[in-house]
Amino acid sequence: MTLSGKVSKTKRDQDQFVRHTETFLSQEQIKLARDDLDYWGRDWTRSFEVAPLAIAFPTSTEQVVELVQLANAEGYRLVPSGGRTGLSGGCVASNHEVVVSFDRMNRILGFNSVDRLVLCQAGVVTAQLQQFAVEQGLFYPVDFASSGSSQIGGNIATNAGGIRVIRYGLTRDWVAGLKVVTGNGDVVVANQGLIKNATGYDLRHLFIGSEGTLGLIVEAEMQLRAPPEPHRVMVVCVTSLNDLLSILQCFQHSLQLSAFEFFSDFAMSKVLNHRGLDRPFSTVTKYYALLEYDESDADVATQAFSECVKNGWIVDGVLSHSTLQSERLWELRDGITESIAADSPYKNDISVRISEVPGFLDDVGSVVEKHYPDLEVCWFGHIGDGNLHLNILKPPDLEISEFQDRCRAINPLLFELIQKRGGSISAEHGVGLLKRDYLRFSRSKGEIERMKAIKDAFDPNGIMNPGKIFAPNGDESA
Amino acid sequence: MTLSGKVSKTKRDQDQFVRHTETFLSQEQIKLARDDLDYWGRDWTRSFEVAPLAIAFPTSTEQVVELVQLANAEGYRLVPSGGRTGLSGGCVASNHEVVVSFDRMNRILGFNSVDRLVLCQAGVVTAQLQQFAVEQGLFYPVDFASSGSSQIGGNIATNAGGIRVIRYGLTRDWVAGLKVVTGNGDVVVANQGLIKNATGYDLRHLFIGSEGTLGLIVEAEMQLRAPPEPHRVMVVCVTSLNDLLSILQCFQHSLQLSAFEFFSDFAMSKVLNHRGLDRPFSTVTKYYALLEYDESDADVATQAFSECVKNGWIVDGVLSHSTLQSERLWELRDGITESIAADSPYKNDISVRISEVPGFLDDVGSVVEKHYPDLEVCWFGHIGDGNLHLNILKPPDLEISEFQDRCRAINPLLFELIQKRGGSISAEHGVGLLKRDYLRFSRSKGEIERMKAIKDAFDPNGIMNPGKIFAPNGDESA
Repeated sequence: MTLSGKVSKTKRDQDQFVRHTETFLSQEQIKLARDDLDYWGRDWTRSFEVAPLAIAFPTSTEQVVELVQLANAEGYRLVPSGGRTGLSGGCVASNHEVVVSFDRMNRILGFNSVDRLVLCQAGVVTAQLQQFAVEQGLFYPVDFASSGSSQIGGNIATNAGGIRVIRYGLTRDWVAGLKVVTGNGDVVVANQGLIKNATGYDLRHLFIGSEGTLGLIVEAEMQLRAPPEPHRVMVVCVTSLNDLLSILQCFQHSLQLSAFEFFSDFAMSKVLNHRGLDRPFSTVTKYYALLEYDESDADVATQAFSECVKNGWIVDGVLSHSTLQSERLWELRDGITESIAADSPYKNDISVRISEVPGFLDDVGSVVEKHYPDLEVCWFGHIGDGNLHLNILKPPDLEISEFQDRCRAINPLLFELIQKRGGSISAEHGVGLLKRDYLRFSRSKGEIERMKAIKDAFDPNGIMNPGKIFAPNGDESA
Repeated sequence: MTLSGKVSKTKRDQDQFVRHTETFLSQEQIKLARDDLDYWGRDWTRSFEVAPLAIAFPTSTEQVVELVQLANAEGYRLVPSGGRTGLSGGCVASNHEVVVSFDRMNRILGFNSVDRLVLCQAGVVTAQLQQFAVEQGLFYPVDFASSGSSQIGGNIATNAGGIRVIRYGLTRDWVAGLKVVTGNGDVVVANQGLIKNATGYDLRHLFIGSEGTLGLIVEAEMQLRAPPEPHRVMVVCVTSLNDLLSILQCFQHSLQLSAFEFFSDFAMSKVLNHRGLDRPFSTVTKYYALLEYDESDADVATQAFSECVKNGWIVDGVLSHSTLQSERLWELRDGITESIAADSPYKNDISVRISEVPGFLDDVGSVVEKHYPDLEVCWFGHIGDGNLHLNILKPPDLEISEFQDRCRAINPLLFELIQKRGGSISAEHGVGLLKRDYLRFSRSKGEIERMKAIKDAFDPNGIMNPGKIFAPNGDESA
């Protein structure tokens, strides 16, 4: 077929989609222009083809149901789309799918101050919910770099985590109820905002983290809590990863941490250079940890710090005495991603048990050094959750495509190390397109079979985000 | 068939079961005597027929796999059995099933002090895990009346809650990993103790609360945490349920409660009589609430108490100033169940959103008063979770069977009220046999269909705890 033939085929399909939806969607609720398809058809990844058929902007659950019924009847495939801040291609439409954007289902529908529950449409932005909580004198504790754009529906679909999981858990822990349009067009209301509900399988937890492959989340009831007290922060110098674990244990014994982050000297140097900051201490060690805790625990924290120094686990450090100082110390951690952006990093978001972190980092170091001595690795992450961000930096003289090919070649070696230590090939970014061919490194054949059977139960025609999580050819269980 | 015919048929089936298992179970691992069948074939309920074929006591995962494979091959049906403290008949064997008891898989297999994870066999008793935690200087926070007998596997299968859910959540929140032998004989290792793991559907959460209908939990990794500080308790007098909610809000605004329990004056009078205690205050109100909080919050709690008094929500109260005093106040709540035992109470464990509690209690009061003016209702429960224990007391002159028939006749009326308010017909006791015919009051037809499809995916031959959760004839979705 010629290019013009392809174009006109797409045009015909788009015209047909407009006709198919004209009874329930207005013209303003569909976008077909190339720029719009590109914009709404992708997430923050840049390595996948973006080729949606159309973008639909439903404004109600009823319209979502109509879309799902239409898809089942006419063979459209649907890709749900939230804030498009994903890093695994979970909402990339590469194959002529209809993108269902929740940008216009972005209202907070209700709030009850006794239950402290907020009823959100799926398109409510994370920061919008955080701000709403503040206005009620309350707090929504899940937070991450993309809070200004990411949407609640997408957070739930990927069970987003972020910076304070060690204290407040993941998105999963704040979902009290869900309304989902399943792949067969049913509207399922799961759990209804109840704290205790022992009436069979908890479908809510099944939808959380399912990346839109079972159904489209249209509403969620999110739990709020009392606001936290002001935080204090310390950054400590550590010579070995085993010491880092001793420090974690020592602090967790005496107080509740709200963050325990780590970064290598290489990572901190990048931030200091990029932002033109002074080193917070003169000591140089291989690793640093950032600890955050409640202001009222400051004395206890200082005692724990002294104990760690006495034991030789901490060799130097700096403590904040004000919110401003805390924010400055956080820069050392928050600035990493932006400071390495120019090095086109190849990212892997992975996790192991906390106790496995030192051995795992050694293993990875050996593998990279052996096979790719010219590549530089930048380590940082939420070590209190066993969640590591492995960033391989592109040497200046290497072509980007060649660099990425080489990194992809490392993946199986890396994922084997993860498998050996019982870890996860995706800690909090989901599987999407990026990791689907590697699923077998974290999930057994039996598990994958069972997951596919569940998928069939909710989405018999396979119209919901096809090709995500599971490879179409079944390779992931090979 | 004559009685003797029945007996000899059972005998033949039992002999066959012994032959079928002789390659992998020793003689000591099977019980067939009438007393043993009665003992291991039931839970704390007393209204269901108890008629297992045999009791098997596996000591390893491999033996459990053999049992499941045998069941699939030869048509045995399996009923998992933990501490048998259930209140919904979830582990009652009424129909010639093989009971799989975890009494001999009761060892703690491992502990890691960095991860604070304990690897338990399913038969580890709750109190054993609590004690183990204490020995490590840590804390397992899920606690309830049956902790001395209930087993971890059973807790997980019913997502047991208990007394401190408002602070520490349910069993679900402390399960970091599961090993399950599914109905088709696969061994699934779900989540592997990871905090962050975004690799597809979280099967762990699907097994939690599934009441043994998808598979047999053989091992669990349980999360421990730092020990809590000592608690203080207050009991307050309240004239209306709406005031109770205002009190909850007021306290939750300024501190973190570890319990918020309520009981009626009727319930407290029962305890005072039964235990020969003095009233803790001279004031008599319709309701009382027991609040528990950290010792370090005592001043804040006293302030909140004063604010509630000023607003007229609390009319009197008593505060503990020592652990001993706290324990004395807890007696008022803990003593209820035993103090009404002589009245052969008909129990319903139900939940609604916290904000719905006052309206719901009014509704139930009206229904009972209208239809059954001679029956007395004793209310108490974990109101901080919206979890209410409704106990209807047997009038002394009424036959037990007639009384129970009348209570069962109330169920549909009660469950309709729950449905109207979006509540749950089983808050924390599970569905089992007791509530299966009423499932439709809390779960939609679509949900029940989807749940059955999931069941088919894990247990294609229907050998896992058949007849539990779902009625065999499909009535629950009528």
